[in-house]
Amino acid sequence: VDTGDRDRLEELMAPLHAADIADLLEQMNTHDRAELIRLHDRDFDGEILSELDETLREEVIAMLHPAVLAEAVRDLESDDVVDLVEDLEEPQQEAILDALEDADRVAVERALAYPENSAGRLMQREVVMAPEDWTVGQAIDFLRAADDLPEQFYHVVLVDPRMHPVGNVTLGRLMSHRREVPLSELTEDVFEVIPVTRDEEDVAYAFNQYHLISAPVVDDDGRLVGVITIDDAMAVLDDEHEEDILRMAGVSDESSLSDTIFAAARGRATWLSVNLLTAILAAFVINLFSEEIEAMVALAVLMPIVASMGGNAGTQTMTVTVRALATRDLTAQNALRVMRREISVGAVNGVLFGVLIALVAGFWFGVPMLAAVICVAMMLTQVTAALGGFAIPMLLDRAGIDPALASGPFVTSVTDVVGFFTFLGLAGWVLL
Amino acid sequence: VDTGDRDRLEELMAPLHAADIADLLEQMNTHDRAELIRLHDRDFDGEILSELDETLREEVIAMLHPAVLAEAVRDLESDDVVDLVEDLEEPQQEAILDALEDADRVAVERALAYPENSAGRLMQREVVMAPEDWTVGQAIDFLRAADDLPEQFYHVVLVDPRMHPVGNVTLGRLMSHRREVPLSELTEDVFEVIPVTRDEEDVAYAFNQYHLISAPVVDDDGRLVGVITIDDAMAVLDDEHEEDILRMAGVSDESSLSDTIFAAARGRATWLSVNLLTAILAAFVINLFSEEIEAMVALAVLMPIVASMGGNAGTQTMTVTVRALATRDLTAQNALRVMRREISVGAVNGVLFGVLIALVAGFWFGVPMLAAVICVAMMLTQVTAALGGFAIPMLLDRAGIDPALASGPFVTSVTDVVGFFTFLGLAGWVLL
Repeated sequence: VDTGDRDRLEELMAPLHAADIADLLEQMNTHDRAELIRLHDRDFDGEILSELDETLREEVIAMLHPAVLAEAVRDLESDDVVDLVEDLEEPQQEAILDALEDADRVAVERALAYPENSAGRLMQREVVMAPEDWTVGQAIDFLRAADDLPEQFYHVVLVDPRMHPVGNVTLGRLMSHRREVPLSELTEDVFEVIPVTRDEEDVAYAFNQYHLISAPVVDDDGRLVGVITIDDAMAVLDDEHEEDILRMAGVSDESSLSDTIFAAARGRATWLSVNLLTAILAAFVINLFSEEIEAMVALAVLMPIVASMGGNAGTQTMTVTVRALATRDLTAQNALRVMRREISVGAVNGVLFGVLIALVAGFWFGVPMLAAVICVAMMLTQVTAALGGFAIPMLLDRAGIDPALASGPFVTSVTDVVGFFTFLGLAGWVLL
Repeated sequence: VDTGDRDRLEELMAPLHAADIADLLEQMNTHDRAELIRLHDRDFDGEILSELDETLREEVIAMLHPAVLAEAVRDLESDDVVDLVEDLEEPQQEAILDALEDADRVAVERALAYPENSAGRLMQREVVMAPEDWTVGQAIDFLRAADDLPEQFYHVVLVDPRMHPVGNVTLGRLMSHRREVPLSELTEDVFEVIPVTRDEEDVAYAFNQYHLISAPVVDDDGRLVGVITIDDAMAVLDDEHEEDILRMAGVSDESSLSDTIFAAARGRATWLSVNLLTAILAAFVINLFSEEIEAMVALAVLMPIVASMGGNAGTQTMTVTVRALATRDLTAQNALRVMRREISVGAVNGVLFGVLIALVAGFWFGVPMLAAVICVAMMLTQVTAALGGFAIPMLLDRAGIDPALASGPFVTSVTDVVGFFTFLGLAGWVLL
């Protein structure tokens, strides 16, 4: 790129997959990126845009010559175009839609009419279907004669006369049976029909739970309107996971390595603000006991240990709970049992670490009552942490709030306050 | 289950998918579970075992009558059996292997000879292949005549005379081309060949990055030995996610809701022990400044705010870094740039929250120098948190240690120590 040697660049980039070129663009600085795009515009592949990170996508689209952009998007499948344009600003969206052929544009516009993150946005409209009373021979003849089969398809969807899907036949089974066998005898045992408005997260769950390869999508009247394939579901699963892990750490889930410094700082400031408030709350609790601390500075030295251990245990329970809710292993049926278990785990570790810290504090400061106080405070905080780490995500989930997003600050706030309060309160009561 | 009505139970369970029955078993208490298994053993589906959580799997296998178990595993595909037995204890493993037919047992034993978590364990040995010089017509006739095609397959793998895979042809393309077209003209652009010893995590990455549906697996000599399909890759991706998220919270990644209380407590105690040590280290730092705290209790009230904000910012940067390493968006090429960005983000938020907390502390305690001290300490801690949150996972990754597993305690330990040290140190120097 530095030497501006276009032919050498083409030669180097030719064997790369669009996803790798996108990664390359993401890892460059802005200047090299612009240069690379200028040099590579001869045959810029639309898939590179699909693979790019959202933040960069707008930047790269703006850099591309309109003619190159039009050429690039025309090669994409309609569901990839939907994915590409749904997060763009109005003018860029229109520029891309205008570049499409009429039929494709209508397909994309129709998909965009479905709610965000719904099955309708995820599906492709090209479906290979057959009447439910056909035989293997009829289906094979039909497929052999069709001239616009999708690039990738895994099932022939059987439909009744009202276009309601009634079963899936895999191509493998179709190939391995005699011509006179009715298709209805070859349908797969597992058959999930997905309503077009279903949330993509639920779609990914169904694919994962039932090991689906593709599933028909139906409209409100139960009529077949499209099909979702496992690669789309896998992409959703990957996004959801990314979102969960970033949310749990309090990083804005739309952040990426390509964000500007201020965008990244803003994406993290929300959670830091919440944390500032809860930390100030904890400071108020400590302030209640300023006389006790003045009388015995060892309390100030030891109190962060109790709070930090509580915060850790609370985060552990919270993570297990949030995950179990996400994977639907935690339900109303077993909630009580899981809660009892978490509290018992907290009690076991509370006793263990309570005794350990009592030994440390006892030898360090030589005040037996101080050791006893920190032991009891540690146990109470560990149990409260388990209770808070379980109950807070559960309640948020009930209230319809994503527990991955909001549990963290509440849990550490509870453990800090309880940790400081029990330790300093007990100390004030027993020691002074 | 409570009434022991076997027929009613069968009726209720018949429409359920094996994965749902496994979830049901996981959510029951031990007594109900034993009862359900006793009642349901008439046609116990082997897939239920595959779907069960590992901890419960051993328990359920021990409960099943040997004849029922043998019947159940005989229906499974060989790669599912591998997945089932690889984590079992020796005697259970042998019981299951003995129940298999000879051919299947050999296949399973051969798969078990590959290293754990390798492509060899993941692949299925049944591959549909064709010589590279065949035409569409020859391939279709071959498929139509074959009587042991796998249940699910997506590609015909083209091989050269030495059995090296040279390309993939999708069934869809096969169906939609004329009989005289050579298969070699229909191969897919994206074609990844996976060595049998490759780590399953890298396999899942390749599937996700290149949107693969299936990929041939080759031995050391490059000969085709099996095929991995996207559903296996999706399962690995899901497991890896689960592992990452639990590891980052310091929960043993083999934990599950079905663990006993003591197993769960042990799974969390490791991280709590590490945290205890780092908290004691932080306490030592505070103890260095006990005179300052005695002279001004406000220091003890405010110091947890600085440490907690640092811990939060450090965790944010660490999560972004760990994720970027996992998704391979962070490489040696852009490491310096990302580090500069993270430090800048830390500086921006350091200034913001430094000023905020200075205002709070100034109004609360009415000591302007105290406000200035906490402002500077907050800024320094935020920048150090960014640096630590970036550098610690990077160094662990270089050293070959999973950064998701070990970064957390180091990062919070650094932020705690730096937070307490800068705040109390500055205060001692300026105020007293």
